[in-house]
Amino acid sequence: MTAAFDFAPLVPEGRPPAAAKWTGSPKYNFTGGNNDGDELPLDGLIAAANAVLQREGRTLATYGLNSGPQGYRPLRDFLVRKLKRDAGLSCTADDILITSGSLQALDLVNSALLARGDTVIIEQECYQGSINRLVRLGVDIVGIPLDRDGMRMDLLANALNDLKRRGVRPKYIYTIPTVQNPTGTILPESRRAELLRLAETHGVPIFEDDCYADLVWTHERPPALHAMSRSANVIHIGSFSKSVAPALRVGYIVAPWPLLGHMLAIKTDAGSGALEQMVLAEYCAPHFAGHVPVLTKGLRKKLDTLMEALGEQFGTAAEFEEPKGGIFLWVKLPDDVDTLKLYQAAVRAGVAINPGPEWSVNAKHSRNRMRLCFASPSHDEIRQGIALLAEVCHREFGVPTRIGNVARGG
Amino acid sequence: MTAAFDFAPLVPEGRPPAAAKWTGSPKYNFTGGNNDGDELPLDGLIAAANAVLQREGRTLATYGLNSGPQGYRPLRDFLVRKLKRDAGLSCTADDILITSGSLQALDLVNSALLARGDTVIIEQECYQGSINRLVRLGVDIVGIPLDRDGMRMDLLANALNDLKRRGVRPKYIYTIPTVQNPTGTILPESRRAELLRLAETHGVPIFEDDCYADLVWTHERPPALHAMSRSANVIHIGSFSKSVAPALRVGYIVAPWPLLGHMLAIKTDAGSGALEQMVLAEYCAPHFAGHVPVLTKGLRKKLDTLMEALGEQFGTAAEFEEPKGGIFLWVKLPDDVDTLKLYQAAVRAGVAINPGPEWSVNAKHSRNRMRLCFASPSHDEIRQGIALLAEVCHREFGVPTRIGNVARGG
Repeated sequence: MTAAFDFAPLVPEGRPPAAAKWTGSPKYNFTGGNNDGDELPLDGLIAAANAVLQREGRTLATYGLNSGPQGYRPLRDFLVRKLKRDAGLSCTADDILITSGSLQALDLVNSALLARGDTVIIEQECYQGSINRLVRLGVDIVGIPLDRDGMRMDLLANALNDLKRRGVRPKYIYTIPTVQNPTGTILPESRRAELLRLAETHGVPIFEDDCYADLVWTHERPPALHAMSRSANVIHIGSFSKSVAPALRVGYIVAPWPLLGHMLAIKTDAGSGALEQMVLAEYCAPHFAGHVPVLTKGLRKKLDTLMEALGEQFGTAAEFEEPKGGIFLWVKLPDDVDTLKLYQAAVRAGVAINPGPEWSVNAKHSRNRMRLCFASPSHDEIRQGIALLAEVCHREFGVPTRIGNVARGG
Repeated sequence: MTAAFDFAPLVPEGRPPAAAKWTGSPKYNFTGGNNDGDELPLDGLIAAANAVLQREGRTLATYGLNSGPQGYRPLRDFLVRKLKRDAGLSCTADDILITSGSLQALDLVNSALLARGDTVIIEQECYQGSINRLVRLGVDIVGIPLDRDGMRMDLLANALNDLKRRGVRPKYIYTIPTVQNPTGTILPESRRAELLRLAETHGVPIFEDDCYADLVWTHERPPALHAMSRSANVIHIGSFSKSVAPALRVGYIVAPWPLLGHMLAIKTDAGSGALEQMVLAEYCAPHFAGHVPVLTKGLRKKLDTLMEALGEQFGTAAEFEEPKGGIFLWVKLPDDVDTLKLYQAAVRAGVAINPGPEWSVNAKHSRNRMRLCFASPSHDEIRQGIALLAEVCHREFGVPTRIGNVARGG
């Protein structure tokens, strides 16, 4: 064996640095969008896998099955019905492109529309995966603050006017209007109408990310922006990761032609995984509507456990608005707490949190905030993990003040 | 409904034009890398799906299952054993990254190593997906002619020397050495040693694409370049598309760290489809080795049918070397035949072929050549399709000369 070839000089400048090797998951993992394994409809998925493979399994020998590049036709047909029923959204199977998770949907929309130096408008607190993509693409991000009802329309109007004055036309307004990530808010219908009005006035399309929209506690949700629009100016994406299972990697885009054709031209992967599409279509057609309330019931219990644990361990040191659904809680800690530092100290102790600055484009606002995913850990792990987090936070920052094992003031 | 929003002005210049809507498959489809549905090991896959889901299905609730970002651990463990057994390649599970088909493997290697204006060396006739990617990336391509034993090493040496004189260091030498696409050749061990010697002398790594390597008729194959290398200068990729089923979208990269870490950092998709990985691992561990000879036996019969049909319909107008395995036949037609035009006329008649210029970087050499996939059409479809193709070719170009329904001379 001669000296190992050095690839490093061949990697162009500016490429992301090499990732470290994975060393396993932390004991108490409040990060990521992992789902609740207990609520996974396993028997239904197994039955679906059997049925669809028996009936159509040989089509796996053909790229795209017999459905072409937009994805397994029965899955698109299911989505047409589901979107109409749940989001008021009318479309046809031709308007849908099945993607490898909503992450690929984000990539395809961005690849079709964005160039370095473009400007986009997003919610100030936002999904980390979306923020990172925009940063990596060299796009200027304008973040609009949120309140308990989602994006502030008055501030959006200001931002649009300001950009117009500067001669900048943003490429889109990106919003997660139904169970916003990370804040858990829902944009009410009146604000949606205002958002659409502003978008139309300024000639800026809307990029609607409804990945978490199935997980509303009350199962009542305003119509999708895509449904309310009168000018077909909305690109709508969604996913099965939060309603069924994240590891399946199945998402979708609803967009008008020819824009969908541009995204299809960029999607040069010879199709997204066919087996997952087949199994999902087979399972969801009869069972999706019945599955979601069972799932959200279980998630709601975990949220309650988390909020209880925070109250017990952090007292008034942890402030939060109860999310209207979903799997995340957005928590504000006292001003002195730097959640990036808290994250580092906590992960050494075996607790992983999502530090606020990674979920916001406003560093000052998010500095003492954190996002906690409650879907994946068990109830015991939630309680133990939050207790441990409180210990670490107390040790690092002196808050919450603690007597014995629980918070006293803070 | 007001006027529909026009997205076209927002699409940056230089983006690929919008794809057309899919209108179904041609009646006689000799294109693409579709596999033989009859040989798909359906019962085995169904049994595997049941077993693995019963045992581990709840891990689908977690991104990456319990295996982290490099892919389902048992699948990587299977590949470690398989690569050793079939390719002489030694590696560990840590050296493997499971990808969404080998197309993603191509993208990750290219994203880690290539910048606009770089130079790469490839086989002059090559996989279309690879050529298109390089063109889209703005990379200069040097194509090395092949003969019946694959890439010409004398011409490779010339090219490397020529580039050196011009002060150009190519980023890699890309080769499909075992059942080359489209020529069906196998690079013998002696040429592999020469390729490695040249690569080491010039400090250029090798990018080895073994996607078709399982389909050698004799099941005897030279060791992988990765196995023969003494300086860890080979990136090796493979796929389950040709050995099991293309629609599953499961491929892999074998590469040294930290290069693999760079590719991992670029693979921001939260994991490739987990269900396919689980089912493949479960099926392949006991059955892969037994499945491949059954598959290749069936493929060989289809090749025989195709070669017979060509002989009958085209006579001497169709020249070809029998491929050493795989699913493709590379055919030379008389000099006057423009296969791009033939493709267009044929597809209108319901027969689809792959025109040579899309599978080569030498337009002159490939102008009258075509690639035919024989795996997917049935034996009858092969016979009927080739007869129809001969009619079209005769009509367009006067060759083959035909009396009745078969070729006479030409």
